[in-house]
Amino acid sequence: MTTPWNQRCAQRMQWMSASTIRELLKLTEKPDIISFGGGMPAPEVFPVNAFRAAADRVLSRQGGQALQYSATEGYRPLREWIVAYMARYGIESAPENVLITSGSQQALDLIGKIMINPGDLILTERPSYMGALQAWRAYQAEFVTVPVDDDGLRVELLEEALCAGPKFMYILPNFQNPGGVTLSLERRHQLMEIADHYGVPIIEDDPYGELRYEGDHLPPLVVIDAERMKGRSLRAPNGDGYYAHEHTPGNGRAYMRGNVIYLSTFSKTLAPGLRLAWLVAPVEVVQRCIIAKQGMDLHTATLNQMIAHEILTEGDGNFLDSHVRLIRSVYRQRRDAMLAAMEAYFPEGVQWTHPDGGLFLWVTLPEGLDAAEILKDALAHKVAYVPGAAFHPDGDGHNTLRLNFSLCDPQRIETGIRRLGEVFAHAIEMHEPEMELVPAP
Amino acid sequence: MTTPWNQRCAQRMQWMSASTIRELLKLTEKPDIISFGGGMPAPEVFPVNAFRAAADRVLSRQGGQALQYSATEGYRPLREWIVAYMARYGIESAPENVLITSGSQQALDLIGKIMINPGDLILTERPSYMGALQAWRAYQAEFVTVPVDDDGLRVELLEEALCAGPKFMYILPNFQNPGGVTLSLERRHQLMEIADHYGVPIIEDDPYGELRYEGDHLPPLVVIDAERMKGRSLRAPNGDGYYAHEHTPGNGRAYMRGNVIYLSTFSKTLAPGLRLAWLVAPVEVVQRCIIAKQGMDLHTATLNQMIAHEILTEGDGNFLDSHVRLIRSVYRQRRDAMLAAMEAYFPEGVQWTHPDGGLFLWVTLPEGLDAAEILKDALAHKVAYVPGAAFHPDGDGHNTLRLNFSLCDPQRIETGIRRLGEVFAHAIEMHEPEMELVPAP
Repeated sequence: MTTPWNQRCAQRMQWMSASTIRELLKLTEKPDIISFGGGMPAPEVFPVNAFRAAADRVLSRQGGQALQYSATEGYRPLREWIVAYMARYGIESAPENVLITSGSQQALDLIGKIMINPGDLILTERPSYMGALQAWRAYQAEFVTVPVDDDGLRVELLEEALCAGPKFMYILPNFQNPGGVTLSLERRHQLMEIADHYGVPIIEDDPYGELRYEGDHLPPLVVIDAERMKGRSLRAPNGDGYYAHEHTPGNGRAYMRGNVIYLSTFSKTLAPGLRLAWLVAPVEVVQRCIIAKQGMDLHTATLNQMIAHEILTEGDGNFLDSHVRLIRSVYRQRRDAMLAAMEAYFPEGVQWTHPDGGLFLWVTLPEGLDAAEILKDALAHKVAYVPGAAFHPDGDGHNTLRLNFSLCDPQRIETGIRRLGEVFAHAIEMHEPEMELVPAP
Repeated sequence: MTTPWNQRCAQRMQWMSASTIRELLKLTEKPDIISFGGGMPAPEVFPVNAFRAAADRVLSRQGGQALQYSATEGYRPLREWIVAYMARYGIESAPENVLITSGSQQALDLIGKIMINPGDLILTERPSYMGALQAWRAYQAEFVTVPVDDDGLRVELLEEALCAGPKFMYILPNFQNPGGVTLSLERRHQLMEIADHYGVPIIEDDPYGELRYEGDHLPPLVVIDAERMKGRSLRAPNGDGYYAHEHTPGNGRAYMRGNVIYLSTFSKTLAPGLRLAWLVAPVEVVQRCIIAKQGMDLHTATLNQMIAHEILTEGDGNFLDSHVRLIRSVYRQRRDAMLAAMEAYFPEGVQWTHPDGGLFLWVTLPEGLDAAEILKDALAHKVAYVPGAAFHPDGDGHNTLRLNFSLCDPQRIETGIRRLGEVFAHAIEMHEPEMELVPAP
């Protein structure tokens, strides 16, 4: 008899479904399709030669260590490098606050595993990153959402949503995936004040923070949180007298505490094929994540961590800064090419965001249009995007879609956007007669 | 206010605890301690030069692809290689039956995620691999156990345990971790017959199968299962007329079906620091695993998969075979050194297994001794092992312990076993007076 595997499945499988994006990417892998669908960095800016040299140095000098099992929390020199790197942005931590993860996706899975009970409510932006929804649905989470506008999360709507009692809030403050919008400084302060008032912690996901093409860097939520605590410490110090701001980065002691778990990654600055990211959190959270990660993959690949560390520290230690400058200049050009082409080719009634950084633009079609339906026509015209509904936990957003501008060069972007403009114009034209069917009063 | 993170934890955290082994390994990292505690391959046999050359070739020829995102199910050429490799052992599959995982630990986590509901019962060997217990406790599994002896699982005790209604059985047939014992051919057939009769599927974990130092290779459970199905097909063919045995490996169609999910890994044959393993299962299982893995880490590192594939296929494609021969000769020597030293130095009353392969020996001290307590004395004598209780889901086995023989060279093995012999002799001596306190009848 053959095992009826379907009937041996866990109940949580009913909450899980394949990622629309990843299934779609397979369709768009044909070279003649111009795909704005994925979230892929441009492979032509990968620092391949730096990787070759670093891999060779690591394997020739520390081959035995690089190929061996290693600690669940990550390669300590890399964790120390991350502490120093984040200190530039005001994030004060010690290596004990840093956990290396197998991509940010694993950090999201870890957070689900240590925090989410079946039926727990998670507050997300609307739209939000599909991978987080997917990771947390596997823990049978439910979602309550607050919409974003051009300044990010609409914090004036936050309190009503918080009254539903979410376990935590999930916020992408910089060049949000998929919206491309950035949370304004004023709203960051408001958000942290409200979060503190309601006692609801925040998962701050910042994969794109380094990829800013215009405007000033804004402080991460984790820093605003620490500042708020610093302010309080003057009025009402804790029993042990320690606060985040009293900690000198890299001194080996972990005083970080607060209301924010901060996530970032090397996927957008070095390469996603490494699966290398990190989580920064109070020690009690990191320790729980370590216990969970032991059962999930023992540790992140040693070789990858050591190669990344070698690239980051070789020579004068400035590789990442100069490489990020290159990425910014390439992607800024592509973003500008996409914005210009949209201005030129998109029909009236179509709206889009103007991202200050990151990889994505968000497009809103006239009410009543269905981006998933129109995608079929787009694929027939050899151009692809991701329909917006997948980024909405509640399944709406049918007239929205996400465009990626990092993968294609400016010429392909122009061609693709021109094709999309025609597809959208046709869809709008076909849609309008229906509206005329409504009899005049 | 600081978030009370403890109070935001999921209930499942109460089922999870840090791995005794991994915590212990930290204590034994001091170079003056001879550690038989971990399960680490000998770094001196890592094929470092093959890795250097392969990394260089992959990055110079396919750098853009190696550093980019890739498919959740794994790098297709590697999956095809695995299909051909497993066919040598009679395992018939297609690439659609193969999922690349970030170490076998991730395969265990995946199986937990797609199959285990809170409170589900899992049948394991006693003792069993601690990492599996850890992965599945996170899904709030309970365990029912069947002891092993020198011929592996005591199948004559299986039916009673199956009546408890386990969701699946977890079996390590070859050189079991931690027992070092191998399931005999006769028992393999008995096991598959009973499994079929009760309709309970099997997770077959085979990380060490290639590392056999004496005796003949025995057929994997997944092959015996397929043979049984073949036998039946002659009597009562299925509606679609397809059976595993009718499938030619690599023809791109996936007919594999049956009652076994098979796991193996490159950790013991190439290097554990890659975090590269695989799962073979019917397509409906693989597809569910893909959905779950999307939310867990998107995919296993592309670079690592391509480097492994390059090593496995370069030149005449025989690298792995010759490398495994080297590993076998080194580890056989170490096993023999440990067995000889135990014979010479261990006091009367101490028993141990004679593994035909793998990395581990299992030691049983006289009843009433506590290996965890004795470990303190062992560490004082600069030698370490893993107390056996951690491998027992029910927490017994206090007088047992696991020894690893792959990491240390024969001379260190002899020194370490001599020290252990003294520690054990002392423990037995201290223990006996207590027994004499029992008054004679």
